[in-house]
Amino acid sequence: MAGLHSQACPMGLTIRPFEASDRDAVAGMLVDCAAFSDEEVRVALEMVDCRGYLLFVIEEDGAVRGYACIDRTPLTVSTWHLYWICVHPGAQRRGVGTSLQQYIEDFIRSQAGERVVLETSGRPDYERTRRFYERSGYEPAGRIRDYYKPGDDCVLYLKVL
Amino acid sequence: MAGLHSQACPMGLTIRPFEASDRDAVAGMLVDCAAFSDEEVRVALEMVDCRGYLLFVIEEDGAVRGYACIDRTPLTVSTWHLYWICVHPGAQRRGVGTSLQQYIEDFIRSQAGERVVLETSGRPDYERTRRFYERSGYEPAGRIRDYYKPGDDCVLYLKVL
Repeated sequence: MAGLHSQACPMGLTIRPFEASDRDAVAGMLVDCAAFSDEEVRVALEMVDCRGYLLFVIEEDGAVRGYACIDRTPLTVSTWHLYWICVHPGAQRRGVGTSLQQYIEDFIRSQAGERVVLETSGRPDYERTRRFYERSGYEPAGRIRDYYKPGDDCVLYLKVL
Repeated sequence: MAGLHSQACPMGLTIRPFEASDRDAVAGMLVDCAAFSDEEVRVALEMVDCRGYLLFVIEEDGAVRGYACIDRTPLTVSTWHLYWICVHPGAQRRGVGTSLQQYIEDFIRSQAGERVVLETSGRPDYERTRRFYERSGYEPAGRIRDYYKPGDDCVLYLKVL
């Protein structure tokens, strides 16, 4: 499949499709990044294990430091969802997340995808995450009040590729 | 499960959980209502067949005239999604859809659900559908431009129960 080959990024990072042996590293970063509840980690790993989504990992010096879970959005012609993106806390603020995000967008373009939708939390402790998306060209497309739980809105973002 | 018993509605309508023998009637109304593309019908029936969602049908004089597909929204405390609601074209404008909608909302309340989210098309030919939701207390919570296809936005609705 086009775009599924390993790709060298700036800074010696490498992005490649997920392999079964990456599972422990992904599980570890989901817990260690401290951004996700136990249930979120469980669901994220279900989406790894079911193999129903496209998964990519980013390596730094041979160690898996981030992953993303994406797929075509059902019932749409050219919309994709970015379901999960996670970078190990020890690798944050070094361009790992940005490299992975850009790779994902290039991959989606290579598959004739024209837009990416993602959902994230409106909580104050997600402000850095939301700013990351906004700097990357994602625009708010909606907000569902108290969606995750009272006081925890869902913010929808859209990026037209 | 609470709320899963049959319920008599006004006008002699009856709502009950979906049974395997309802499958043909549901498939028929999805096609006959002419609101859904072939792919939408296929996905709606996948969601019937996988038995991973809660399904209800509404009967009029013993004939299944509508159905709804709902479920708890993953990763949320008290949010539910209304994924599909369809009324046979021969039974529209007689309160069948409204009765089914109200039953669904009562059922969700009985399960401690506090809000319902649904997605529908922003196309002009969906205006009657959107008005139905708006009259029923659903408020727009977002719009994703060109989501389904160019010129076909996704409109998100939220009802707080």
